[in-house]
Amino acid sequence: MEPSYRLIISCPDRVGIVAKVGQFVSSYGGWIVEANHYADPTSGWFFMRHCIKAESLPFGLDEFREKFAPIAEEFEMDWAIAASEAPKKMVLLASKESHCLVDVLHRWHSGELHCDIPCVISNHDDLRSLVEWHGIPFFHVPVDKENKQEHFDRVSAIIEEHQADVIVLARYMQILPADVCAKYEGQIINIHHSFLPSFVGAKPYHQAAERGVKLIGATCHYVTQDLDAGPIIDQDVVRISHKDTVEDMVRLGKDVEKMVLSRGVRLHLEDRVLRHGNKTIVF
Amino acid sequence: MEPSYRLIISCPDRVGIVAKVGQFVSSYGGWIVEANHYADPTSGWFFMRHCIKAESLPFGLDEFREKFAPIAEEFEMDWAIAASEAPKKMVLLASKESHCLVDVLHRWHSGELHCDIPCVISNHDDLRSLVEWHGIPFFHVPVDKENKQEHFDRVSAIIEEHQADVIVLARYMQILPADVCAKYEGQIINIHHSFLPSFVGAKPYHQAAERGVKLIGATCHYVTQDLDAGPIIDQDVVRISHKDTVEDMVRLGKDVEKMVLSRGVRLHLEDRVLRHGNKTIVF
Amino acid sequence: MEPSYRLIISCPDRVGIVAKVGQFVSSYGGWIVEANHYADPTSGWFFMRHCIKAESLPFGLDEFREKFAPIAEEFEMDWAIAASEAPKKMVLLASKESHCLVDVLHRWHSGELHCDIPCVISNHDDLRSLVEWHGIPFFHVPVDKENKQEHFDRVSAIIEEHQADVIVLARYMQILPADVCAKYEGQIINIHHSFLPSFVGAKPYHQAAERGVKLIGATCHYVTQDLDAGPIIDQDVVRISHKDTVEDMVRLGKDVEKMVLSRGVRLHLEDRVLRHGNKTIVF
Amino acid sequence: MEPSYRLIISCPDRVGIVAKVGQFVSSYGGWIVEANHYADPTSGWFFMRHCIKAESLPFGLDEFREKFAPIAEEFEMDWAIAASEAPKKMVLLASKESHCLVDVLHRWHSGELHCDIPCVISNHDDLRSLVEWHGIPFFHVPVDKENKQEHFDRVSAIIEEHQADVIVLARYMQILPADVCAKYEGQIINIHHSFLPSFVGAKPYHQAAERGVKLIGATCHYVTQDLDAGPIIDQDVVRISHKDTVEDMVRLGKDVEKMVLSRGVRLHLEDRVLRHGNKTIVF
Repeated sequence: MEPSYRLIISCPDRVGIVAKVGQFVSSYGGWIVEANHYADPTSGWFFMRHCIKAESLPFGLDEFREKFAPIAEEFEMDWAIAASEAPKKMVLLASKESHCLVDVLHRWHSGELHCDIPCVISNHDDLRSLVEWHGIPFFHVPVDKENKQEHFDRVSAIIEEHQADVIVLARYMQILPADVCAKYEGQIINIHHSFLPSFVGAKPYHQAAERGVKLIGATCHYVTQDLDAGPIIDQDVVRISHKDTVEDMVRLGKDVEKMVLSRGVRLHLEDRVLRHGNKTIVF
Repeated sequence: MEPSYRLIISCPDRVGIVAKVGQFVSSYGGWIVEANHYADPTSGWFFMRHCIKAESLPFGLDEFREKFAPIAEEFEMDWAIAASEAPKKMVLLASKESHCLVDVLHRWHSGELHCDIPCVISNHDDLRSLVEWHGIPFFHVPVDKENKQEHFDRVSAIIEEHQADVIVLARYMQILPADVCAKYEGQIINIHHSFLPSFVGAKPYHQAAERGVKLIGATCHYVTQDLDAGPIIDQDVVRISHKDTVEDMVRLGKDVEKMVLSRGVRLHLEDRVLRHGNKTIVF
Repeated sequence: MEPSYRLIISCPDRVGIVAKVGQFVSSYGGWIVEANHYADPTSGWFFMRHCIKAESLPFGLDEFREKFAPIAEEFEMDWAIAASEAPKKMVLLASKESHCLVDVLHRWHSGELHCDIPCVISNHDDLRSLVEWHGIPFFHVPVDKENKQEHFDRVSAIIEEHQADVIVLARYMQILPADVCAKYEGQIINIHHSFLPSFVGAKPYHQAAERGVKLIGATCHYVTQDLDAGPIIDQDVVRISHKDTVEDMVRLGKDVEKMVLSRGVRLHLEDRVLRHGNKTIVF
Repeated sequence: MEPSYRLIISCPDRVGIVAKVGQFVSSYGGWIVEANHYADPTSGWFFMRHCIKAESLPFGLDEFREKFAPIAEEFEMDWAIAASEAPKKMVLLASKESHCLVDVLHRWHSGELHCDIPCVISNHDDLRSLVEWHGIPFFHVPVDKENKQEHFDRVSAIIEEHQADVIVLARYMQILPADVCAKYEGQIINIHHSFLPSFVGAKPYHQAAERGVKLIGATCHYVTQDLDAGPIIDQDVVRISHKDTVEDMVRLGKDVEKMVLSRGVRLHLEDRVLRHGNKTIVF
């Protein structure tokens, strides 16, 4: 993939946005390699993601930002531009279960996910060897009923220290405190092991078995202060039958969880997910 | 398909059931063309469905029932035997929406669903011509806030009059009274336009749009007195994106609804669905 | 859906296309409600589909064409503009099998497919009553080994007479002569009952049973002079198992066929399918 | 999972097989925890897989075999019985690509796949560290145009030395010699990166891109002497669009490949796959 700049815009919809942006880009010889737009008829909001060949522009990000600012102001844009080459720093939080972590680490290791992974944090020590094999520092921060605040303080400190741009809860199994959720709004990605909004909270596969559903699923979403209620990035399901016990559902569900989480993470890393209220626009 | 007898059994699981039944069938030269078993490890219950070539047995259903009774008693079986050739009487209830009704009627008309359809009942007259083209009597029984009881009395009377074995709610949009649900327990099949247990009740697509899900679905289930909470027969989903409005979701959902309803109806007509508590075993 | 104009463009990719088109549209106050672009890195070709609110422009299609012509010339565009309100004339060809025809007719009848259906042509008379119930003229044009040329001459004459914009082969089961394929290039849509390129030609389900595949499928494609080799619009599959006989596969396959055909037809009617060589860009 | 014996039977279909086997098992107090039958109407062949609780029987495998032999002879059965507890020895062959290997190793490591992995063989040294982290011996056996015979001799020797019950080609990318295929008939599992029979042979994703398909897939099958033509165990697909380059297809395809391969391997390890001619019965 050639280096490109990703221009992400949200603003009230009106005539001329595409033209104005297009004209700006082309006036400097900018070559658009991918363009996505969406005008939401319900909210009257407009969303846009353009990838511009970096070498086609005569200037870098700073000058782009400066030159583009007047347009952004005119159209009241919420906007950002990022270089595709600049890896985001992604901190992973896990517990004992390895399937999601292995999947994300393997994709990173084989070059499929473009990011840096400064460290992995877990409340158990089980996955240390696996993480360290990948050359990534592993922090074991135990947690129990008595030391929750202490645990989260330490976790927050590690995240901050490593300047995380993205925090991925790879089956971390702990509920983050409200202040952490607020501080990293739109930057924390969780995988919930049910097809939300079905089976919020603990033991969703047990709930699914109880209800006798014929499909189980997983949901990748941004974490907000409301448990399992944040903006959904991706979901998927797998068929089950009466023959599948809760153990079978756990096993089958793992495959959906890891696939959905990795897809969601990839979309986020490529700046393809725009949040608007409690929904996402995924380009 | 050659005529066969379908032997359906539920009973407490213990050693020797399969052997006893198998020996009984083979002692009369019975040829088993399809056999399904399931032992539920949680409930300790055993379920079985055998299809026996009708002509391989030297007797008919009545004599089968008589001869098999001692075995059934010994193993405390809840059981039934039915001839594959004997069509069930299936009464359809609809409202204004035609997609599910058209799908079921077309499958019946083209020989894909083996049943009789003595009549269709609707609270609107819109679908009369469609139904009558198929040579099926159409009953228009209007309903409004004032005449609910009258409506349901008339509907019940028509169902009874036509000796329905199965009642299919093909987007009927009315909540059946508790006594009707009780009377036809395990014989009323509904299609709910969401992936249950998400979005119970009215306007599930609006609820789905509100939540920002990435898949929508439909659920075919037996009707019980608890709204949208009966045993699930089948479910399916379809992928949507931020671009899909509620209207798009309604349109895309129709395809899932009709497919899932028709699959559920077919499974029921072939005696493939065994209920156990609030779950189904689908052979 | 509000009336809109659909502007469809293919041209060699270069800097400034989006800007130029966007500027043209916005200079007249045109409100873009949907925009899609694709730059094919392999062929160096650019594709674009814009929906512009009709009432936001101060002129109609003719004046649009006139004013836009210089831009089209400058960028060597292959282009078209169409009013979303103007229904295409779609002639359906069928044989004896009703599932695809019923599905398309029902979607049209319920307002889901925006088009006119001036007539249905079939080499058998079986589906006459069904078609005529919809208020659509039905032409029975028999065919046998001896009168193939005569049959196709008559079929061509009926198509021409009804000024078809689109011809849909809804399981027509005849191979159209090369001259018809050439004359209506990009306007004839076929459904093939296999997942192409597997199982080209006759009896694909028998071929699939022979090979022991675990999924069967259907393919909606434009008809060219090469049998089952034209540009693919859409495909889908359904899972089967060893238990499924060829008859089961035929039955299960019908559902995939009708869904895929109807999706493909809808995409075509909304001008969402751009052909490029033997491939399609589907917006 | 409690220890069980898996009784696998294929034989000509006739009256009384189920009864005879059931009676045999129950006469010794055998508790059947899972039972599957299939009578193929085309070939007139009967297939059966029973899981019997090991502790419910008063004897072990050897005595079972001895006592069951007369029944097997009477019904001309091709049969086997295996203890669920006895792990099969599975040798993995890989090349440079890690996704399938990582997936299988992780499932084995986390206890999801019940087998022993005595070694991994590869024609490149790239995956050594990964394999050795799992505590599994790694053999690097290079291959080039000149030393093919030598390579395969060495590979065969290693396989034999480790007494492999199953050989899994986890994107091995070499065509095994006919004698190896013959020697390990029904024991070699391959993953082909296309939806067979489409795109046999090399570079299937390039073939798929060329044809413009809208779904790509993967196929897990037993290896025979005919390239990519052996009995299919499982297949799956993933949706692509015009936007996906060959590189995208390779990436998306990897997920399908590893899922399908791991499912196939699991089914094989649990003795759920019965071969009959070029087809499989999957219980």
